Amino acid sequence: MNNYKLTIQYDGARYKGWQRLGDTDNTIQGKIENVLSEMTGKTIEIIGSSRTDAGVHALEQVANVKLAGEMTESEIHQYLNRYLPQDISVTAVTAVHERFHARFNAKEKTYVYKIWNESYPNPFMRKHSLHVAEKLDLAKVREAASYFVGEHDFTAFSNAKSKKKTTVRHIDTIQIEEDAGFVNIRVRGNGFLYNMVRKMVGTLIQVGLGERKLEEIQSILESKDRSLAGFADAHGLYLEKIGF
Amino acid sequence: MNNYKLTIQYDGARYKGWQRLGDTDNTIQGKIENVLSEMTGKTIEIIGSSRTDAGVHALEQVANVKLAGEMTESEIHQYLNRYLPQDISVTAVTAVHERFHARFNAKEKTYVYKIWNESYPNPFMRKHSLHVAEKLDLAKVREAASYFVGEHDFTAFSNAKSKKKTTVRHIDTIQIEEDAGFVNIRVRGNGFLYNMVRKMVGTLIQVGLGERKLEEIQSILESKDRSLAGFADAHGLYLEKIGF
Repeated sequence: MNNYKLTIQYDGARYKGWQRLGDTDNTIQGKIENVLSEMTGKTIEIIGSSRTDAGVHALEQVANVKLAGEMTESEIHQYLNRYLPQDISVTAVTAVHERFHARFNAKEKTYVYKIWNESYPNPFMRKHSLHVAEKLDLAKVREAASYFVGEHDFTAFSNAKSKKKTTVRHIDTIQIEEDAGFVNIRVRGNGFLYNMVRKMVGTLIQVGLGERKLEEIQSILESKDRSLAGFADAHGLYLEKIGF
Repeated sequence: MNNYKLTIQYDGARYKGWQRLGDTDNTIQGKIENVLSEMTGKTIEIIGSSRTDAGVHALEQVANVKLAGEMTESEIHQYLNRYLPQDISVTAVTAVHERFHARFNAKEKTYVYKIWNESYPNPFMRKHSLHVAEKLDLAKVREAASYFVGEHDFTAFSNAKSKKKTTVRHIDTIQIEEDAGFVNIRVRGNGFLYNMVRKMVGTLIQVGLGERKLEEIQSILESKDRSLAGFADAHGLYLEKIGF
């Protein structure tokens, strides 16, 4: 068996997220596994780096899959893009070491959340960004974001469904960038709890709108109370990069 | 009556183009007129600068409309964006001179055609660009494009349905620009015949793929034969700017 690394982009709008849920489900993992199973005539399982949530997009998701070496990387790549739905695209297929594991070897992940921050709606990005019509106070958002950087117990910014063993995570950087009408919030860390980025971004938006004081980030973190944080819609969130 | 200039963006994917076709049609003009008629309680007609075709998008379309001065610009603007479908957005409403006419006063128009020129599909731009998987020879495309610049009879690059009195148009510039996997073909001119940009771009793509010699642009122009030019799909085309 050969081990292949798949690099994948997807528009998550119409999917129930990355993780396969059943035999006939509408998930990214399920769609890719179905094509690979058709291709090989065997039941294929793939391992993704990050279990993106329903509606979340990916600019660069990584997965690995073990296949009998009957086809070249290029043949696998072409087969996948020929039979996958148009909202899922494989950007690269590379043979990797047999011990490469997309989830266990992922050392850091970057997510970006796109906010359309103009008074009028953006017709092209309506399903791919969150529209916040009132101008965000970015000085406040940046200062509030700095409370997240470093190692913290993120229980208050997670969902009770999270099954991770520890709720401590390390955030390396949060960048708040303005880009032609958008405010992009880019978060890099060693891992994220279920709903964690969306709860962080939702709370930062509340700060940017003056609905909440920036010092509250600290007290919400310390409270470990899941009911306090804000929550931003899935459709503005993109998995941007996996670091190995 | 006051005269208002509307600046409009739209995702044309699900519309039959700009121009109203009937009472219950699915056109951009129709959608905007319906909202303004609801707003005023009267039958309202708007005049657009450019009659974009079915499936064509606009980053900046301009229209003008005469309304009794009962509402402020800001109130009209907010009403429109509140009731328009999410794929049509009004970016500005400005009171203008009573003689301003969006179509007759338009001196130049810029269209941009977006080609996704990577081997793998782009899941986010699948309805908003044309996927050309084979690399285009841009040196050849640029040289071919130069044949279009200046004043020409564009009969061969028009559709027989075109009702314009003259088929002579002046192209000011054509720029071919690479942008992170995209090739954007930007055409500025004093006006365009029906299907003209799509026929020009379709022919340039044939040149870029080596399916046609670049000198043929000249002979197709001279032939005035509508059957010779290429034809690119509507969904990669955007009306970008109207100059007055």
